[in-house]
Amino acid sequence: VGHVDGHLALIDQTQLPAVLQERQCTTVEQVWESIRALRVRGAPAIGIAAAYGVCVGLQTTSSGDQKALDTRLDEVLRYLASSRPTAVNLFWALDRMRRKAADVRGRMSTAEQRAILLQEAISIHEEDRAMCHAIGRHGASLIRDGQGVLTHCNAGGLATAEYGTALSVLFTAQDEGKKLQVFVDETRPLLQGARLTAWELLDRGIPATLICDSAAAHVMREGKVHSVITGADRIASNGDTANKIGTYALAVLARAHELPFYVAAPSSTFDLSITDGQSIPIEQRPAEEVTEGFGNRTAPENVDVFNPAFDVTPAEYIRAIITERGVIEPVNLQTIAACMAQQKGTQLFSR
Amino acid sequence: VGHVDGHLALIDQTQLPAVLQERQCTTVEQVWESIRALRVRGAPAIGIAAAYGVCVGLQTTSSGDQKALDTRLDEVLRYLASSRPTAVNLFWALDRMRRKAADVRGRMSTAEQRAILLQEAISIHEEDRAMCHAIGRHGASLIRDGQGVLTHCNAGGLATAEYGTALSVLFTAQDEGKKLQVFVDETRPLLQGARLTAWELLDRGIPATLICDSAAAHVMREGKVHSVITGADRIASNGDTANKIGTYALAVLARAHELPFYVAAPSSTFDLSITDGQSIPIEQRPAEEVTEGFGNRTAPENVDVFNPAFDVTPAEYIRAIITERGVIEPVNLQTIAACMAQQKGTQLFSR
Repeated sequence: VGHVDGHLALIDQTQLPAVLQERQCTTVEQVWESIRALRVRGAPAIGIAAAYGVCVGLQTTSSGDQKALDTRLDEVLRYLASSRPTAVNLFWALDRMRRKAADVRGRMSTAEQRAILLQEAISIHEEDRAMCHAIGRHGASLIRDGQGVLTHCNAGGLATAEYGTALSVLFTAQDEGKKLQVFVDETRPLLQGARLTAWELLDRGIPATLICDSAAAHVMREGKVHSVITGADRIASNGDTANKIGTYALAVLARAHELPFYVAAPSSTFDLSITDGQSIPIEQRPAEEVTEGFGNRTAPENVDVFNPAFDVTPAEYIRAIITERGVIEPVNLQTIAACMAQQKGTQLFSR
Repeated sequence: VGHVDGHLALIDQTQLPAVLQERQCTTVEQVWESIRALRVRGAPAIGIAAAYGVCVGLQTTSSGDQKALDTRLDEVLRYLASSRPTAVNLFWALDRMRRKAADVRGRMSTAEQRAILLQEAISIHEEDRAMCHAIGRHGASLIRDGQGVLTHCNAGGLATAEYGTALSVLFTAQDEGKKLQVFVDETRPLLQGARLTAWELLDRGIPATLICDSAAAHVMREGKVHSVITGADRIASNGDTANKIGTYALAVLARAHELPFYVAAPSSTFDLSITDGQSIPIEQRPAEEVTEGFGNRTAPENVDVFNPAFDVTPAEYIRAIITERGVIEPVNLQTIAACMAQQKGTQLFSR
């Protein structure tokens, strides 16, 4: 996701890795379509795109007319909210824009209000960027020069403002002068590892080796990697972590090979209303992702398919969770509660 | 692989699962091309096809001319041996046909010699069929009615004379009236599970559920499967087993979930010249199998790829090896040596 200068610029992720195409969204309809069509994906990136999308949408209102601004704002917020109905970060970002608009409504010119809203979108963007870098700094201390690291799916800059979460750890380690060898699970069925993570690593000059998901255990056994690091979609109070299908397998395999398994995620990923992983619902995805994943039918027409989007890794398999507030280690109810309770900015578990 | 009536009939595996096409090979060139182009694959099936291929090739010799038969036999044997230079079963079958030809040469008419050679090909076929059924009988005793079973790659009837090895266990359990629910790993990169195993199971009316390889751990954790069964490419003296990439991961995951992990393979798979799995060479396959699996490029052009065809599962992870001679359990140097030493036909470890 890029910045706004009357428009929103973003990398069209559906074209990667074949084509690196920057998409300029000059209308709110284009922003909506980009979110809907997964041209921008990743929870933080969707939130940022939506916030900027509000600003793009408000450009059509005539100067000085508060009522027109109110009407258009309401319209744009509802419209963008319909782009991906289950994306939590989308609603969070739109709600934040709505509250900011309410704060300043009538207290200044409509042009000034629009400027304030653009500033709010930039803040959302900047806060995410700072969060990614903080995760990178904390996590990089866990990676040593010359090590091999295995990652799964895409928890990189494409999904966030910059640097990402799991990949931020690797990017920051590289910035610190550490040489890495990263093994990338292709991540069936949607191949985010092959398409996006491999691209991001190569783009930054980090040696990346693509493997089939099923080869991870063999790579571990051969001593090629020293740790495993992934992102997270949702983390329960006790540390049980939902993430892309295949993450749990890696955690079990990492333990069998005595390798540390790390999760990198912002504190906003923790859902303290959930006791443990059993309460996390697992989204089932269409069979066609598996049976027609590559454009050709690769399975019998009438076969049943079980295609869970996520799995849950029990906290006991996770050596540490790397957040923007610091590293949570060991991972349990107490250490997570302590991290979540601390003031933003302090680093209780920093190392 | 079907039988001969002047020609060889085989299912074109490259067309599965989209099209079930039987290919009639009336010339040795067509047999050669079918082996080369992987229309017939699986070690036993290749051997059987090659043996029949010799008979197809000899049809062109004129009756009564021993010298013409000698020349043509030599030509056909060398030609078929060039179809897949690394297929051990191919050479084994051709060598057996060569020895049989030498046994009977000059002792009867050339027509009778050709009939004897066809009988030898039929014997190779029948022995493989009997072997598959014996594996099925021994293995079926390990599977209970109503259980879920996970399998990987294709160790079924398409790769053998009939029934296969790992799938023979499931087919035989079904023949015994047991109801099964089979989970099939799609088996990246070449998707033998999705394309072939799912097809074979559905063809026999066994409920099959296709999953991504990375979902196997989640399926185990959810209690959906009670055992894991795969074939084998090569087994060392101590029981370490080379098989399709991803097998080792399943074995580790099975242990973590306290599920038995079984290997089904004929006694010919044991290589007693090899002490342990470390001496088994791992074939590296082309990167394009991963990056251009099914017509579309799914990874950056310049990414490194590590694409081992096999991995090695240490014996300690294998609950039992199911052979045509019986079930080897526990799996170690002594039990394997005892099984290999027994007379063919006796069943020392039968259960």
